[in-house]
Amino acid sequence: MERLSQLAEIGADAERGGTTRPGLSVDEQRACELVAEWCEEEGLAVSWDAASNLIARRPGGRDGIPEVWSGSHLDSVPGGGRFDGALGVLAALEAVAVLGSTPLAAPLAVVAFRDEEGWRFGRGFFGSRAVSGRVTEDELESADADGVRVRDALDELGLEGPPVAGPLPGTFVEVHVEQGPVLERTATGHAVVSSIAGMAGYTATIHGDAGHAGTTPMAGRRDAFLAAAELAIALRDAALVIPGAVVTTGDVRIARPAANVVPGRVELAIDARAPSDDGLQALLDAVEASAAAAASPTGCSVDLDRQWISPPVRMSERVRAALADAAAAAGVAVAELPSGAGHDAGVLAAAGVDAGMLFVRSLNGGVSHRPDELSAEDDVAGAIGVLAGALATLAGAW
Amino acid sequence: MERLSQLAEIGADAERGGTTRPGLSVDEQRACELVAEWCEEEGLAVSWDAASNLIARRPGGRDGIPEVWSGSHLDSVPGGGRFDGALGVLAALEAVAVLGSTPLAAPLAVVAFRDEEGWRFGRGFFGSRAVSGRVTEDELESADADGVRVRDALDELGLEGPPVAGPLPGTFVEVHVEQGPVLERTATGHAVVSSIAGMAGYTATIHGDAGHAGTTPMAGRRDAFLAAAELAIALRDAALVIPGAVVTTGDVRIARPAANVVPGRVELAIDARAPSDDGLQALLDAVEASAAAAASPTGCSVDLDRQWISPPVRMSERVRAALADAAAAAGVAVAELPSGAGHDAGVLAAAGVDAGMLFVRSLNGGVSHRPDELSAEDDVAGAIGVLAGALATLAGAW
Repeated sequence: MERLSQLAEIGADAERGGTTRPGLSVDEQRACELVAEWCEEEGLAVSWDAASNLIARRPGGRDGIPEVWSGSHLDSVPGGGRFDGALGVLAALEAVAVLGSTPLAAPLAVVAFRDEEGWRFGRGFFGSRAVSGRVTEDELESADADGVRVRDALDELGLEGPPVAGPLPGTFVEVHVEQGPVLERTATGHAVVSSIAGMAGYTATIHGDAGHAGTTPMAGRRDAFLAAAELAIALRDAALVIPGAVVTTGDVRIARPAANVVPGRVELAIDARAPSDDGLQALLDAVEASAAAAASPTGCSVDLDRQWISPPVRMSERVRAALADAAAAAGVAVAELPSGAGHDAGVLAAAGVDAGMLFVRSLNGGVSHRPDELSAEDDVAGAIGVLAGALATLAGAW
Repeated sequence: MERLSQLAEIGADAERGGTTRPGLSVDEQRACELVAEWCEEEGLAVSWDAASNLIARRPGGRDGIPEVWSGSHLDSVPGGGRFDGALGVLAALEAVAVLGSTPLAAPLAVVAFRDEEGWRFGRGFFGSRAVSGRVTEDELESADADGVRVRDALDELGLEGPPVAGPLPGTFVEVHVEQGPVLERTATGHAVVSSIAGMAGYTATIHGDAGHAGTTPMAGRRDAFLAAAELAIALRDAALVIPGAVVTTGDVRIARPAANVVPGRVELAIDARAPSDDGLQALLDAVEASAAAAASPTGCSVDLDRQWISPPVRMSERVRAALADAAAAAGVAVAELPSGAGHDAGVLAAAGVDAGMLFVRSLNGGVSHRPDELSAEDDVAGAIGVLAGALATLAGAW
């Protein structure tokens, strides 16, 4: 908990509260370097890969056995809390400390993947995609709001680009805060993650006719905001009947908003998620149908542009069993939950790594990406114990 | 039409297209001075009052008869068209030219009221409110986006403040573009305005709970945008059943919009208008009821703040009759319409002046406040003829 506080000082945001550590920034680098020092104190061998991921290894007892990694990320959203990401990196380091000199067959590593949040350059999961061979040369040319390219940011960190694939571990375990209210509502401290939801993002551009609020009769208006309102409500209603599905319209903007002008154009972001392939398909079908249905009575047209899609990813049965067994052995109650958020563990799982996750209860109603993000010290301690047990199982006795 | 083009060059806006002449700006002043030159060429006696309104008089034939004014305004919205306001000032000047040396009992004046649009300092109708005694000392301290106060703007124009009441004319006639689609839809060139709609503006602040789009289950969400959507749709449905009523939600903003965050707070502007007292009251009741109804199923709370209200104002029967008679005499077909927009004529009517308006058909679907705002030359010529006839009647033969 003390180290989480120390990390939260790096990039402390006086304006927003909380911490702002953009991916591939100097502040994220400073956080990684501080953790690297702590890893060295623990006797780990620190290294950095070409994507600037921190990988701090404890050697295994036998040759030729795939590595077991644990960690998460150290970047943050603007005004973020101290647990998202950082908890997973520090829990891995603490678990390695708990294991002490226990002889294990496989090498272990504490890992911090770069730029998980993605708001700076628009994509996220940079580090885990890099080791998975999913960062392209093109992507290095994309720039942040200040015109700094990914390539420039890597240069500034003194790294040789471009990031290349691998080496991948055999196994990856990520501890992360739930960032939702379910564990708090069910009074459970932890959950083994069953799968990472499939998800897709759309931009809907709604075209109507701008007009004077006083002189354009209601009959015949083509009000783009009313079409957006109908669309958002139809999407909610569709998600409510698909198990585990969620849909969010969190960024809706009227072009040239003015109190006395009928909106002529609206852009609306749609974030749609469901835990299963079938559920995701049903939800995406509902997005298409709702867009068409919202357009017709309002006289507007809707252009629907799918920006990205990521299919559901199941977590490794082997890792899930290791986490559940370790929890049982430690007397820690664990639930089982799908993850509605994407995580580095999902990226590695998609690349064929045996990946799994342990969620730690989020308090304060499950808030995250905010300064008041909170998990209890007892829950954090429990997670370290469970992780240490699972890593011992996954690395194998020697 | 040529003079409308010349005026449109003053404050021509290369970025937005159209013309940007803020109220009480140097560009508005230049437009007024150009019109003042044209008035002098027509033999009118130019004067400026303490609110910087331009009043260019043609003497009457008899003493002690209240003045008859005609005009409108010369400021524009950002990127506005060439007809809104300017047409009414130039039509008045052309009508006086048509009257030539016809002997009339009352003095006539061509008038340009300052800062009608109000976007610079937030209120509008500055010139007509000033002559009506409705500009306060406090208001002179309000500032534009650059920190320039009304008082400073008047100083820069070389005017002694503060603006004081009157003298008011006995009669005021304003020619203005309809700024709506009704005359185009009904294939009629002109309308005598029956009343200026009552109107009110609200800000609704909707409080919900922000949450992560992926990890916050649909059940239990308090999504402020969905409440805003329900409110906008309920308002539309309410307005549809009140004769002549319109309601617009043209400025809706999510606090900290992000595609992957459930909106926690939304501010929504409501513009509500109806032509009669009863209609306006029914509409305002519906605003209150709709806000309460939108809050409850979404678990949000709605704070409704009425920012301003302006009751319906009937146009003078005497002026309406003069306009209708003049149209009949000239063989010009005129409809009768309420005005959904506020106008300087409404401000003067509320101050006891016999005020009336003649609308000129807006083409292009009735668009206004845009560079493609358009009225036909024939319709403009017809309006000048009708106005000249009405002014002759209202000023009285001598």
